[in-house]
Amino acid sequence: MRIGIDMMGSDNGSKVFIEALSEAVKKYPNVEFVAFGKEEELSSLKGLSHVKTVFTTQVIDMNDGILSIRRKKDSSMVKLFEALKNNEVDAAISAGSTAAIVTSAMIQVPLIEGILRPCLVSAMPTKTNKPIYMLDMGANSECEPEHLRQFAIMGNEYAKVFGVKTPKVALLNIGAEAHKGDKLHQATYQLLSKEEHIDFFGNIEGRDMFNGEVDVVVTDGNSGNMTLKAIEGTAYFALDMIKNMFMKNLLHKIAALIVKEGLREIKHTMDYSSYGGAYLMGFTHPIIKAHGSSNTKAVLSAITQTVKIVDSNVTDSLRKELV
Amino acid sequence: MRIGIDMMGSDNGSKVFIEALSEAVKKYPNVEFVAFGKEEELSSLKGLSHVKTVFTTQVIDMNDGILSIRRKKDSSMVKLFEALKNNEVDAAISAGSTAAIVTSAMIQVPLIEGILRPCLVSAMPTKTNKPIYMLDMGANSECEPEHLRQFAIMGNEYAKVFGVKTPKVALLNIGAEAHKGDKLHQATYQLLSKEEHIDFFGNIEGRDMFNGEVDVVVTDGNSGNMTLKAIEGTAYFALDMIKNMFMKNLLHKIAALIVKEGLREIKHTMDYSSYGGAYLMGFTHPIIKAHGSSNTKAVLSAITQTVKIVDSNVTDSLRKELV
Repeated sequence: MRIGIDMMGSDNGSKVFIEALSEAVKKYPNVEFVAFGKEEELSSLKGLSHVKTVFTTQVIDMNDGILSIRRKKDSSMVKLFEALKNNEVDAAISAGSTAAIVTSAMIQVPLIEGILRPCLVSAMPTKTNKPIYMLDMGANSECEPEHLRQFAIMGNEYAKVFGVKTPKVALLNIGAEAHKGDKLHQATYQLLSKEEHIDFFGNIEGRDMFNGEVDVVVTDGNSGNMTLKAIEGTAYFALDMIKNMFMKNLLHKIAALIVKEGLREIKHTMDYSSYGGAYLMGFTHPIIKAHGSSNTKAVLSAITQTVKIVDSNVTDSLRKELV
Repeated sequence: MRIGIDMMGSDNGSKVFIEALSEAVKKYPNVEFVAFGKEEELSSLKGLSHVKTVFTTQVIDMNDGILSIRRKKDSSMVKLFEALKNNEVDAAISAGSTAAIVTSAMIQVPLIEGILRPCLVSAMPTKTNKPIYMLDMGANSECEPEHLRQFAIMGNEYAKVFGVKTPKVALLNIGAEAHKGDKLHQATYQLLSKEEHIDFFGNIEGRDMFNGEVDVVVTDGNSGNMTLKAIEGTAYFALDMIKNMFMKNLLHKIAALIVKEGLREIKHTMDYSSYGGAYLMGFTHPIIKAHGSSNTKAVLSAITQTVKIVDSNVTDSLRKELV
């Protein structure tokens, strides 16, 4: 297996990627890594076995639109997706902005035949230790019911990669009843009710999403991204309040020491930047978007996720589902 | 001031309303309350000074559509809104479902001249103790840019009721830049940029909403409701984790005792059902929707909010702003 990595474009610079790669080569001795980035930043990778470097001179940032992406032919992201398209790598990882990754991928990498739109799927923690797989988290700003039907099928296949045998697939909506929501959600409900490839649970509201009742949550990119950001905002707000509570005085700090392990767990669960990455699904080859503010652990977890996705052949099963 | 209250329709029954009313008459000796509900449920209000009762035989529940609302002419909600329309009360409070309240109000109570759509505005806590006023939280499932422009003006006036002199008004979106989001959000951004009645901050993302940078957050009813429910879900998830951490063993329970006050504060901030209510803005008379699962404290806080809204004459200032 060969995994290509865009070493640039993370908010924390190439350092976290270099550290993660050094650990990944030990953890996955059968994987070949190809690191794309500026020569001066990747010098420390020299001599690392199982790591090839491809030096590029440009970087695509979040303000780059379609035109500048087309122009930046020697950027780490463009070169990575070129290698992906040409089967020189089996999967690609980048921490660039969602917009840049989606745009570059759409220009360079083919979609699986029959797929109308790519979509971003993320695993989110629930109260039951069993994650939910949510999509689309923001690859598309406008969606049609048929796109959401395909997202449901993609989410279904993705949940299977992580061992869920018959995933329960729900539609994120503002109420449980079939008639709830705007026209898009009403029409999607009808489509999903008839869809034979999935076990449709019905609508689910954001406040019930974390109960662990369902495995896959389908949403349009706009609502998905709004929801994701509201979750992140609330989670950080909660962490902030917990921190302030324990820092209040010495006695409170002692209390913090007592529950130290539990606190670490809460922090880990609520810290959305510590999760691996989102899978930009629908392309012939897996593309994984790592969080822009990923630390070393998060990049390593994105690599682990990528290995799992490539091993599962999910793109093949998706191709078969859509025939 | 006369405040009409729908005593039915709350998930917790009429009991919490009766308890709240008994306290409210002491707190607001200058307010006359009119309680609408079934005779057998309101018997304990007999003899309570400053409280008039209007007995009704029917209850509108969340499954009632337009037709059944028109049919249930002797329900507490319909009778309350009738009294509101006829100036027999100055404001109305109900814990019925959003859909039922919006539908009944639309049938019975006139909108302020020039207002195209009513909208739900809620105060949400932030990291800075200064709330944000968010609207529309779910009165409309489909919105046009012009509706959102009006929501911005309504939110602006509402923030002034609570002492914000020049509210900073932001548009909830999936990115900060003007071109972000779907067509609705792009077009709304343009409208709000030119709007002279407000101090437009630009787009704000859900994850930055709690930083306290802005005072008013404008959103369409669908995104608003999705966001609200994601916030609620995440908040309850966080509270759940905190509770589990402290219940783990005796030592952890002692730690909980140490930080007891702080825990209560976090619980209060994160518990969205403890907030007063959402103001269904745009009608000639104030209508306040209390949370369906309100406890006595939450109902009392909805009453306090209603007194403040009536005192502020916000419907009059809105009328002037829209001329």
